[in-house]
Amino acid sequence: VVSFFTSRTVSWEDGEVRMVDQTKLPGRFVSASLSRPEEVADAIRRMVVRGAPAIGVAAAMGVALAVVRSDAPDMKALAGHVRAASSLMRSTRPTAVNLFWGVERAEAAALRSRSVREARERVSSEVKAMEEEDVAANRLLGKAGARLIDNGDTILTQCNAGALATVGYGTALGVVRAAVEEGKLVKVLVPETRPALQGARLTAFELLSDGIECTLISDTAVGHMLANGRADKVVVGADRITRDRWVFNKIGTYQEAVLADRHSVPFYVAAPVSTFDEKKTHDQVVIEERAAEEVAVVKGRRVAPKGVPVANPAFDATPPELVKGIFTEKGVLYPPFGASG
Amino acid sequence: VVSFFTSRTVSWEDGEVRMVDQTKLPGRFVSASLSRPEEVADAIRRMVVRGAPAIGVAAAMGVALAVVRSDAPDMKALAGHVRAASSLMRSTRPTAVNLFWGVERAEAAALRSRSVREARERVSSEVKAMEEEDVAANRLLGKAGARLIDNGDTILTQCNAGALATVGYGTALGVVRAAVEEGKLVKVLVPETRPALQGARLTAFELLSDGIECTLISDTAVGHMLANGRADKVVVGADRITRDRWVFNKIGTYQEAVLADRHSVPFYVAAPVSTFDEKKTHDQVVIEERAAEEVAVVKGRRVAPKGVPVANPAFDATPPELVKGIFTEKGVLYPPFGASG
Repeated sequence: VVSFFTSRTVSWEDGEVRMVDQTKLPGRFVSASLSRPEEVADAIRRMVVRGAPAIGVAAAMGVALAVVRSDAPDMKALAGHVRAASSLMRSTRPTAVNLFWGVERAEAAALRSRSVREARERVSSEVKAMEEEDVAANRLLGKAGARLIDNGDTILTQCNAGALATVGYGTALGVVRAAVEEGKLVKVLVPETRPALQGARLTAFELLSDGIECTLISDTAVGHMLANGRADKVVVGADRITRDRWVFNKIGTYQEAVLADRHSVPFYVAAPVSTFDEKKTHDQVVIEERAAEEVAVVKGRRVAPKGVPVANPAFDATPPELVKGIFTEKGVLYPPFGASG
Repeated sequence: VVSFFTSRTVSWEDGEVRMVDQTKLPGRFVSASLSRPEEVADAIRRMVVRGAPAIGVAAAMGVALAVVRSDAPDMKALAGHVRAASSLMRSTRPTAVNLFWGVERAEAAALRSRSVREARERVSSEVKAMEEEDVAANRLLGKAGARLIDNGDTILTQCNAGALATVGYGTALGVVRAAVEEGKLVKVLVPETRPALQGARLTAFELLSDGIECTLISDTAVGHMLANGRADKVVVGADRITRDRWVFNKIGTYQEAVLADRHSVPFYVAAPVSTFDEKKTHDQVVIEERAAEEVAVVKGRRVAPKGVPVANPAFDATPPELVKGIFTEKGVLYPPFGASG
């Protein structure tokens, strides 16, 4: 049995990217080793790896693969390879800002080198550092958030903002793990999170594996549970927090925030600083629209009539007035969140 | 291709109960003929037939089967058979009040007879009358509601309050059909309605069959759609409207009402008078808790880890302050809805 207190979802090992194949969970816990940028791009698109912090690091590693595998004779040729890989990575998914941040960091490490050999070394140590930093940031933000969690709390979350959404430890579930490590009894209420079922498949799996008490519900039961006092706090992750401090996260987050507000249940966001986008305001963010089949077909079985039109936005936007605090590795931000927008 | 403007979901035919098997939809549209009360009880429990008005009529027909099939020599013996069948029907599902209303009506028709032969005739004509009345009520409430629907409206619904939830024509979808029959262009936004997926399986199927434009969404996308102006009105059915005018309906309805309220989208309920429970207030209603497997397993495929605890309430309660109007066959009720509680 894996412990998600210590496991790594994505890691850089001897010039290859090793990642847990999340499409196989909860049935099988298996990893894949990827050696080409195209394989990493495909893994991000197919959600073999998902979660904003995890895809940020994975995308950086995709760029790193282009560098360490490149046969470029000089820096000029290498720069071409790097830019092609960066552009490939940026095309995979549009909403999580960490992806663009990760690509930029790996790209910069490569391009500021004076030789191909130096670039290989720099980019390798850069992505390994990003990997370590991600876990360290999650442990810090987890501790910061855990201070607001009381012994006996039931925490409602959304999607998977756990070890599997990051390199390790998790953001929202990092807060839960930190509270557990402090000796607090914490339970988690887990909406299944249609269409991709990350709550049912991943969050429930992580929590069961770690022996943390949880209850799975349909997404339709969130309001009923909050109305009946079945959650004390809400803690979710984020894919992008804009300059005007709107929180973009998995579809379904916004309605949880509205319902938490109605029932005076505090709604918190747990996200590393790499999730903050100081360039864009909320109206400038592209919300990814995914395939109709994600909704119409579940695990290969059709659940809706053929030909029915589907809208499948993967993310939604929660306005800052519904957020009681943002847990980061630099501490807890409270309204107005140092908004620069 | 079936037309849900005219089809019958449940009907009394030559002393048998004929019903569409909704567990097979949208893959196959097939009907079953049931001749024993036990078969009807099982069909209600397994949601072969579902929807408050449909199970009200089906349960009455279950009692009627006990009467027409009884070998009782006298009224005293018959009364025993009737009471056993009524009690069996009442034990199937606890939340929809129509079920109790339907059983009571069939029981009363049988028990006020002076001979077994008279009871057989009375109960047969009673359930046939209930069948006709249901369609007539839906056409009337549909017309009443359609007056509030504008040409070009997109209507958000929940679950299936359509022809398949009633004997025919539907309640919430009856309003849509009446608007279409008046020549209005109406679109429907359909949440899939986990766990049992009545939106995806049944509502989308009805609307596609009838050529009414619709878009399927995950339940997680309701808030996002309302926040982005993607629905003009909400119309849902009801399983029970209590004396204090709380609306019990499929899980997920309450959160739609809260979100509609936040975005100033009017929230309407379409329900026949048989859905009103003048005896109970909202705190006295039992909300059915269904099996964990409904959430953890979709179409035979496991989507959550084995052993994960599940909460699976089948209904929720919407307070009257979130409801802008109730469409009934007697007209539209506006707040305070003639509340007697």
